Amino acid sequence: MYFDVASTAPLHPVARQALTAALDEGWADPARLYRSGRQARMLLDAARGTVAEVLGVRADEVAFTASGTQALQLGMLGALAGNRRRGAHLVHSAVEHSAVLHTAEQWERTPAGSGTGEVTVVPVDRLGRAAPADFAAALRPGTALAVLQSANHEVGTVQPVGEVAAVCGDVPLLVDAAQSAGRAAVPAGWSLLTASAHKWGGPAGVGVLVVRKGVRYSSPLPADEREAGRVPGYVNVPAIVAAAASLRAVRAEAERENARLHGLVDRIRTQVPLLVPEVEVVGDPVGRLPHLVTFSCLYVDGEVLLAGLDRAGFAVSSGSSCTSSTLTPSHVLAAMGVLTEGNVRVSLPFDATEAEVERFLAVLPGIVAEVRAPLGLDLPAPAGAAPVTVRGGEPGTGDTGGPDAGEPAGGGAAGGGAAAGGAPDGEAAGVAAAGGGALVLDALGKRCPLPVIELARRIGEVPAGGTIAVLADDEAARLDIPAWCGMRGQEYLGEAPAAGYGGDRGVAYLVRRTA
Amino acid sequence: MYFDVASTAPLHPVARQALTAALDEGWADPARLYRSGRQARMLLDAARGTVAEVLGVRADEVAFTASGTQALQLGMLGALAGNRRRGAHLVHSAVEHSAVLHTAEQWERTPAGSGTGEVTVVPVDRLGRAAPADFAAALRPGTALAVLQSANHEVGTVQPVGEVAAVCGDVPLLVDAAQSAGRAAVPAGWSLLTASAHKWGGPAGVGVLVVRKGVRYSSPLPADEREAGRVPGYVNVPAIVAAAASLRAVRAEAERENARLHGLVDRIRTQVPLLVPEVEVVGDPVGRLPHLVTFSCLYVDGEVLLAGLDRAGFAVSSGSSCTSSTLTPSHVLAAMGVLTEGNVRVSLPFDATEAEVERFLAVLPGIVAEVRAPLGLDLPAPAGAAPVTVRGGEPGTGDTGGPDAGEPAGGGAAGGGAAAGGAPDGEAAGVAAAGGGALVLDALGKRCPLPVIELARRIGEVPAGGTIAVLADDEAARLDIPAWCGMRGQEYLGEAPAAGYGGDRGVAYLVRRTA
Repeated sequence: MYFDVASTAPLHPVARQALTAALDEGWADPARLYRSGRQARMLLDAARGTVAEVLGVRADEVAFTASGTQALQLGMLGALAGNRRRGAHLVHSAVEHSAVLHTAEQWERTPAGSGTGEVTVVPVDRLGRAAPADFAAALRPGTALAVLQSANHEVGTVQPVGEVAAVCGDVPLLVDAAQSAGRAAVPAGWSLLTASAHKWGGPAGVGVLVVRKGVRYSSPLPADEREAGRVPGYVNVPAIVAAAASLRAVRAEAERENARLHGLVDRIRTQVPLLVPEVEVVGDPVGRLPHLVTFSCLYVDGEVLLAGLDRAGFAVSSGSSCTSSTLTPSHVLAAMGVLTEGNVRVSLPFDATEAEVERFLAVLPGIVAEVRAPLGLDLPAPAGAAPVTVRGGEPGTGDTGGPDAGEPAGGGAAGGGAAAGGAPDGEAAGVAAAGGGALVLDALGKRCPLPVIELARRIGEVPAGGTIAVLADDEAARLDIPAWCGMRGQEYLGEAPAAGYGGDRGVAYLVRRTA
Repeated sequence: MYFDVASTAPLHPVARQALTAALDEGWADPARLYRSGRQARMLLDAARGTVAEVLGVRADEVAFTASGTQALQLGMLGALAGNRRRGAHLVHSAVEHSAVLHTAEQWERTPAGSGTGEVTVVPVDRLGRAAPADFAAALRPGTALAVLQSANHEVGTVQPVGEVAAVCGDVPLLVDAAQSAGRAAVPAGWSLLTASAHKWGGPAGVGVLVVRKGVRYSSPLPADEREAGRVPGYVNVPAIVAAAASLRAVRAEAERENARLHGLVDRIRTQVPLLVPEVEVVGDPVGRLPHLVTFSCLYVDGEVLLAGLDRAGFAVSSGSSCTSSTLTPSHVLAAMGVLTEGNVRVSLPFDATEAEVERFLAVLPGIVAEVRAPLGLDLPAPAGAAPVTVRGGEPGTGDTGGPDAGEPAGGGAAGGGAAAGGAPDGEAAGVAAAGGGALVLDALGKRCPLPVIELARRIGEVPAGGTIAVLADDEAARLDIPAWCGMRGQEYLGEAPAAGYGGDRGVAYLVRRTA
């Protein structure tokens, strides 16, 4: 069962047929004037027309790149160069694809005017949504480009593209539509749009860069006459033909499939918190991609969980989609303020069945329990009846852990919810109060999730209202401990130098037990 | 009959098989840890190993790009950035692929140190060969990179890579092996190498960038962890697998096929000058690619000739491979000082047969004659027995037009050869001597090849030793008139302002009739 289409979708049958045909009919150089070259050019033109029609733009606004990443890099740097007269200020949300973040990092080192490029990152709420008002606040007279994804690739939250385009006014907005192209239309108002064919069932090797008429663009790469001067290098006609054919096919199926997958994802969103203790479903429950859901299992290493699911026959993803091999905490989850570890992203292919989803729900609790077993945590038994956790937020806003508690209340930035059930009560020994009367847990030298595990195991050792100081030097703790508090309804007090709590290095993260 | 593999080779059967298999087995994201991802990673690793083995390098020195152009751009800009401490001076030959020239043009505008990047272009001889001594002369203390192709893409001349690498010493040398990879090994000594899979029968969408261990390299693009940080974007595993499989297959066939194609090309090189009047076969007749030959037919528009050959079922190329749609004169032919128009490049696929070549030779004379007919030139009849033209050069070095005269004497830079036969003798009327006693031909406002046609039609109107001034304002005349003189054994005297010859604009090109 392949549940990771957000990484790459299996080749759509239409794409495969079109690829095979185009290898026969469109293999020649479309720049050549002889028959086979003209034939390749005709196929290329037709493919461009198809993509333009599906995206609702003009054919001469569409250029084909080698990947979504290349489309983003060229789109951003080309628009920044073309709009140099406006200034050198770039705005993007905190939860963009890593290609956007890396391009912005390079832009900050690029000479521009008397200094270098400047970047403002727009924050997101706990659902992963960037507010139009925050975009508006980030804009300034020197802003040359704003970047926003159509929907987030890790948690599925749909971004308010239309509203952000409105607040951008005449500042060009680039929309990264990688996760939604072929599935849903992008609201109007943007200036540039990028997408990636292998995300919609097309072949690898094809990205799309749309630059609307009248938008200033200046290629950041050496001159080349292919793709209207926007993308250098030999044009991959057979793959482009396959990409276009599958985009049209997927778009035609999308309405029906979206509804079906939306239901399957709802089932996962509802059931996982009922079946697995201490789990947080993240992302917007309403304004979301139909096929994608992400949840984080407390105390678990995401990679270990993935390995267990792989053995059970499920291919899913974890953390940031493009940095999983480096095990860097996901910048998306970090920006949302939710737990960055124990993270599982499920993204369903068009042919996913209810039976497959049920099977996933059947094996997941056992796999999580198996990974957690060695930790010796006193977790509530998987219920299937009563909720075992709720989305966190400001403590004391009073949601009770009813059957819907695993489902965020929706829409707003401030999630409610107090902790319910399962706080590991301290049967453990070894309580030791220290600096400022706090219980000090020395997790120095321990990698995440161990500091959080230590906190969970031992918070029961202090009375309600008491304080715990977790000493840690793994940077991920800075994200994970506040996120854990938010999720479990404990109060995060802030950080202080570990020295004040007897540590020889690192940071003390201070937590007050509220429940 | 497809005779244009130097543009793109038809997909090799092995590539097609491997692609189909890899679409099944290697479609997943190779960065993922689940089974299908690990499988894609294994296929990618194996493909990298295969390419490394064929190229004689280490697997971790090989990165896959989206095209040969991207490999050249990244290789050049990455090596220049990595060797910034040496300086900002780039050296390349005058006959490199347009991607090299365009990257160099961008580099000249790139801030470096207190100024910008600097570029020195190394000239080539009339055979298109860059001399190691000229490379040596171009190097200086601030040189950060030298670039040389393994063999020229338009005329097939093999470049002295080993000797140039030797004179480069510790200055990194990038070799563009696009035309030779899979066909012949590149002599050792280089630091970076680029190639393009669709030139050897692999699929479009795959380039190769090799950076030898110890060579300084700094990616010019935003950070990305794929391909060892050298090439951003999703890795196209199926196409890479197909590229590697076909490279191995082509390499295994190369020795036999090279010898066979070498013979077929020799046949074209020998026969075309015997069958078509006023034709110049260009490029090195000995140190050349086995499968590629280029000739220029005087007085003919190359595009028109190609259209005629296309109607007869032959796909060939003309002029510069990457600027054919803009009709810019080929920078390669211009740098060689040979005629830039009426140019036909034949590059034979691995399965080209003798019968196909004979058929090409059978239809070519008629097609050329048909295109030339409206010009009213008094050309010698196609012979098939006596040569109708010879390679030009310094007038009076005394080659006679024997049966081998269509074939350049080989090896050296200075081609010999006086004009033989076919100088259009002036039955035409309208002789008018002017400024300085020269016959003035007013070709102002006429596009090439018209000025050369005018010259050829009317040179017979002046006696031997007499001078003709051709007034022209098409820039191509500056290349074509000296090239025509070189080819026809007439003496090119230089240029002067047209005003001295009664022209209201443009340039007067002065020619002395020697024969």
